[in-house]
Amino acid sequence: MRRNILVIGAGKSTSYLQDYLLNKASEENLEVTIGDLKPDSIPSKTKNHPACKVITLDINNDSQREVAIQNAHIVISMLPARFHSKVAHDCLRYNKNLVTASYISSEMRSLDKEVREKGLIFMNEIGLDPGIDHMSAMQIINNIRSQGGKMLLFESFTGGLVAPESDNNLWNYKFTWNPRNVVLAGQGGAAKFIQEGSYKYIPYQKLFRRTEFMDIDGYGVFEAYANRDSLNYKEAYGLNDALTLYRGTMRRVGFSKAWNMFVQLGMTDDSYTIENSENMSYREYINLFLPYSPTDSVELKLRHYLKIDQDDIMWGKLLELNLFDSTKTIPLKSATPAQMLQYILEDSWTMAADDKDMIVMYHKLGYEVNGVQKQIDSNMVVIGENQNYTAMAKTVGLPVAIATLLILNKKITTAGVQIPIAEEVYKPILRELANNGIIFKEYEVPYLGYNPDSVAG
Amino acid sequence: MRRNILVIGAGKSTSYLQDYLLNKASEENLEVTIGDLKPDSIPSKTKNHPACKVITLDINNDSQREVAIQNAHIVISMLPARFHSKVAHDCLRYNKNLVTASYISSEMRSLDKEVREKGLIFMNEIGLDPGIDHMSAMQIINNIRSQGGKMLLFESFTGGLVAPESDNNLWNYKFTWNPRNVVLAGQGGAAKFIQEGSYKYIPYQKLFRRTEFMDIDGYGVFEAYANRDSLNYKEAYGLNDALTLYRGTMRRVGFSKAWNMFVQLGMTDDSYTIENSENMSYREYINLFLPYSPTDSVELKLRHYLKIDQDDIMWGKLLELNLFDSTKTIPLKSATPAQMLQYILEDSWTMAADDKDMIVMYHKLGYEVNGVQKQIDSNMVVIGENQNYTAMAKTVGLPVAIATLLILNKKITTAGVQIPIAEEVYKPILRELANNGIIFKEYEVPYLGYNPDSVAG
Repeated sequence: MRRNILVIGAGKSTSYLQDYLLNKASEENLEVTIGDLKPDSIPSKTKNHPACKVITLDINNDSQREVAIQNAHIVISMLPARFHSKVAHDCLRYNKNLVTASYISSEMRSLDKEVREKGLIFMNEIGLDPGIDHMSAMQIINNIRSQGGKMLLFESFTGGLVAPESDNNLWNYKFTWNPRNVVLAGQGGAAKFIQEGSYKYIPYQKLFRRTEFMDIDGYGVFEAYANRDSLNYKEAYGLNDALTLYRGTMRRVGFSKAWNMFVQLGMTDDSYTIENSENMSYREYINLFLPYSPTDSVELKLRHYLKIDQDDIMWGKLLELNLFDSTKTIPLKSATPAQMLQYILEDSWTMAADDKDMIVMYHKLGYEVNGVQKQIDSNMVVIGENQNYTAMAKTVGLPVAIATLLILNKKITTAGVQIPIAEEVYKPILRELANNGIIFKEYEVPYLGYNPDSVAG
Repeated sequence: MRRNILVIGAGKSTSYLQDYLLNKASEENLEVTIGDLKPDSIPSKTKNHPACKVITLDINNDSQREVAIQNAHIVISMLPARFHSKVAHDCLRYNKNLVTASYISSEMRSLDKEVREKGLIFMNEIGLDPGIDHMSAMQIINNIRSQGGKMLLFESFTGGLVAPESDNNLWNYKFTWNPRNVVLAGQGGAAKFIQEGSYKYIPYQKLFRRTEFMDIDGYGVFEAYANRDSLNYKEAYGLNDALTLYRGTMRRVGFSKAWNMFVQLGMTDDSYTIENSENMSYREYINLFLPYSPTDSVELKLRHYLKIDQDDIMWGKLLELNLFDSTKTIPLKSATPAQMLQYILEDSWTMAADDKDMIVMYHKLGYEVNGVQKQIDSNMVVIGENQNYTAMAKTVGLPVAIATLLILNKKITTAGVQIPIAEEVYKPILRELANNGIIFKEYEVPYLGYNPDSVAG
């Protein structure tokens, strides 16, 4: 009998996941059942694969869902995280292993005892970020420890960007994932991290002015701004004694300084709606945030307000977005400033059909061994093929697919609700990712303990 | 029989209120019952007045409260606004009129129909701000209308400051009221107002950089930053067609620019707690918000971060607060950045026993009459006598006391839950306030429609 893998959800990030499993179908004796609310959108190449079965699956239809899960040997949920709960409860009931790329919710975590008692594996956070970041970091950390090293510093950065060959705007940025998350990034509280043993806090209004820089061989210089909480994995990674813990989001150099203009103007605010937003011009929109003047232009008011010289590249970045255009309009009713900004940005930053995306990841790991302080920098670059086969879909979907097969083949055996930080998990997955072009390069560099370039500008 | 006025609450702002009523007691045949949870704190001069009766009153003790209200001819509640509800329900039940200086809550508003049906008067928002602002503005607005004028612009500003004779620090500021409200001022959403017919929005991170200036004869120049919602009284004042509506908080010039340093650093954030806050030094506190450096001083990091020249008065303002002192410590456990900042500021900005406070209010009223655009500016300055007889207590307490007597004497007769915007209310009260030294000066000035000095710095 073929072993049936149920993949719930056939969205954006599942192309590589589907292909990987279908390509392994005959040698591994697999049947891949793809369940989606609207299965019509699944490409015919996939649908027509002899090992593929497509079903309509409404996650809120209990009998549909339960039947599909009962028929599976293992279940992958690629739905948004809020839908995992029903799937997890069914998996527990019918004794099925489960794989997701989402952060462990408190509800998921609460199932751990039962999952262990039944000898099941509920593997979560096994996409890109979270996912590849956990695995690649833990491999280096455990290597350092096996040499008797003591961790001093852990910094980790990830970015979803446009590939160099498709990078043709002044911001060096296009939307390769959810634009709303980009517009709201950094909101909801101060960023908190530890630097050389001291807690540090950055408020939203300074977040994009406290960037750190990093160089990737062949790809040039990137910058990163701090994520909201860098201390989340302190315990899971065993880094309770590390002096520096910092996680950040990567952009091309100059993006953050320019983005800060929107922050300062108040355009990223999502907490209130603008009066008469519907059909407001881009120019009227920007003028909402500038002082009234009977004589001065919107342009001059903005330059004066943000202290931008007219030959500053910041100014060019604003012009490129047509921000001062009085003919382009925003069709959104009762919209927040953030929603209106998103509309304007999507007008310029939407990927063209032949544009390629790029995923970058960069770790810095400082440690002490035999009284000597050392540092390893490790980075990964993945370029997408096109808009269906994106670097994002590859880096999210492949680890999920690989983990699923390893669990099915009993190569991963430890039971429980977990994330991929154990050697039995990350070692074979990283090896197989490398076989598929997702490769980390490691460099020994001098230990700095802090980044001298990170002083705020 | 003497007419019994029940004053619930004997806090900070009730000295002038008590004295005014007691001074009128014999000519007006009054008994003044002061009810407080801790009546010991009431000065003996007041307690021993023949018309004064002091009772212990716990607002949550139903029988105590009900008996006191039953025995009164009219009730004043000077408690914090959240306690008015029980008092209001008792007043309704026992047919007593009620006076408060607080904003009308939705619960208070919901009583309007019943209050009217019983012919009662529940007068609210009759302190300083809200209170004197309503009355002084409505008097001018109604004068303009009676001349056939049409309102174009209404701007209104109030500030609680230190009097010039006690003003001896670089910030020209001391805490004359609740310090916590000062530290958190402007948070919780963008400021929204209308300028020349256009909506304008200012985010918190720019609020203190968009100030407007105003001159008061004999007192020099002040500045004001926008209040969160300037449109609250648009309907109540009948200003639906006005082109400009702006309300703000007054400070001495330069305060806002300096305060913005705290905003930019993230020190006014009250949404999270600092790790190990207890016994942190002022210097360690400020360093939480600055990048790590193994070599640079906290001073240089801050100057660089906020771009402050060493001869900038901004720098002097920080030094004056001992912000870089490593011996002064903050004793607060699990404190937020805002709570810690408040502690540091109270160390410098607490009023001395002989310090005097000052209340300033400034209105600008633009209008058109017979095709001509005109403007009236009106302002008020009140200086306190000492720490018991403050300008704040005078401007909050006297309107309450005067209104109470007018209601008792049936000079104010319109029933309902209300604010003081009717002529029968504001006219006699403003006259009596003037008799007590609370005087507005009016000036005819050229109509500008906007303030050319308000361009952001």
